[in-house]
Amino acid sequence: MQICKTIAELKKKIKEIKNEGKTVGFVPTMGYLHEGHLSLMRQARKENDFVIISIFVNPTQFEPNEDLATYPRDLQRDVELAKSVGVELIFAPEAEEIYPENYKTIVEVIDLSQSLCGVTRPGHFKGVCTVVTKLFNIVQPDRAYFGQKDAQQVIIIRQMVKDLHIPVEVIAGPIVREADGLAMSSRNKYLKSEERQAALVLFKALTIAREAIQTGERRAELIEQIIIQMIAKEPSVIIDYVSVVSGVTLEKISHLEGQVLIALAVFIGKTRLIDNIMLEVA
Amino acid sequence: MQICKTIAELKKKIKEIKNEGKTVGFVPTMGYLHEGHLSLMRQARKENDFVIISIFVNPTQFEPNEDLATYPRDLQRDVELAKSVGVELIFAPEAEEIYPENYKTIVEVIDLSQSLCGVTRPGHFKGVCTVVTKLFNIVQPDRAYFGQKDAQQVIIIRQMVKDLHIPVEVIAGPIVREADGLAMSSRNKYLKSEERQAALVLFKALTIAREAIQTGERRAELIEQIIIQMIAKEPSVIIDYVSVVSGVTLEKISHLEGQVLIALAVFIGKTRLIDNIMLEVA
Repeated sequence: MQICKTIAELKKKIKEIKNEGKTVGFVPTMGYLHEGHLSLMRQARKENDFVIISIFVNPTQFEPNEDLATYPRDLQRDVELAKSVGVELIFAPEAEEIYPENYKTIVEVIDLSQSLCGVTRPGHFKGVCTVVTKLFNIVQPDRAYFGQKDAQQVIIIRQMVKDLHIPVEVIAGPIVREADGLAMSSRNKYLKSEERQAALVLFKALTIAREAIQTGERRAELIEQIIIQMIAKEPSVIIDYVSVVSGVTLEKISHLEGQVLIALAVFIGKTRLIDNIMLEVA
Repeated sequence: MQICKTIAELKKKIKEIKNEGKTVGFVPTMGYLHEGHLSLMRQARKENDFVIISIFVNPTQFEPNEDLATYPRDLQRDVELAKSVGVELIFAPEAEEIYPENYKTIVEVIDLSQSLCGVTRPGHFKGVCTVVTKLFNIVQPDRAYFGQKDAQQVIIIRQMVKDLHIPVEVIAGPIVREADGLAMSSRNKYLKSEERQAALVLFKALTIAREAIQTGERRAELIEQIIIQMIAKEPSVIIDYVSVVSGVTLEKISHLEGQVLIALAVFIGKTRLIDNIMLEVA
């Protein structure tokens, strides 16, 4: 497996791969890989001739008050994990390589970026869209894989790719959970033992909501209330948002029908966690 | 010569061309072609195996009070002109093809887009960058050609291509002028006979400025004053801006040195005209 630190090095390698007529699957990550990332890499491995991942803690998607400095990093561990699932190339640039001095261009998906996580993180998706556009142009993958845990991100990137006609197929992989239901996240590392325990309420609340829908509940506000009341049982868990929205447009809905996204974000101590379920409601 | 109205049709054709290993030169235009456009097409013809132009009056680069509705259009004439210089394919989409309903993504080069033309046209370059990104992704040219008359546009597009790592070489062609010095522009059509005559003062003023620099003047403010005073001789010509800036960063300079752009915009009646000279000052 090869590790590229510079764009020039990476582009040279990609040219070779393309010249051999190989298809490229790409998994962009911020590193500190977990089973959620690895499941995307395994899928990429199955569907493409060559698999590239990026490990880049993208500064522009962090708000000024967020955890950019402390975001967990362990390249050596990531390299071993990526190798174990058949990744052929890791692109692991420094920040200056992606954002050189006098960098001035931004890519933004309006409307979709201001709701849900965009309220607390107003610049987040602009940072995501900009770095993903750059990475797509550098890597020129045939397929790119994103985790459904970041449901809003998946919808925004699909919209961006469609709007800008970026020639890449965007594929979302399902949320991977710990045995007790906690959605895998690099930020779970921040949780102290009792916080980790409290965090289980997120999936419990989403599960109860799902059950309510399965038994016929269609009122979005009531679903939100079920979740809020469940989370309230854990006083250390502070709700950022709980939203029932269209799984296509991210618009608020009052009546559940079609593709529905139930998404939430909370703070536990300083740690912000997100989770969601996507349902097809008849 | 082929004319494509839809993206699907165009992409199919481009796939064929790429499969044949041909290089693609691309000249994006808003149509109503003049010798300035044709000179870019001739250069593209020389440097590439296949030449594509787009004819698209891009609505997002017009301000609400501008001439989108009346911008001159004559596809039949444009087709004949393009054919005469060896263009092989014209992409001439309707607005809905480029901006379907629920279009949400924008591309923006900050800083560079707010000075010069960006003051009077605050959304202009965002519209330009967005449509050019889309066109580049659709056409996937090896080289793209832009006229130096839109000097700020050239600098912004170069910055965008560099920042986003868009795999295309941006080439700027020199300003083409009428025999009497007026820079060619589709908007010259708007000018009444006496306005056309008054418009000659732009190139006259730039020429006097150039002469002053050649005889040793290096003070930017004085160069601007020379131009402003010259234009003042034509009372029907209302100055939008006259600016002496770095030809690399578009930043205001006080002392002329290195790559210098002297750019101006005026209104003559309702018609807005721009012109500029780029100089290497020792």
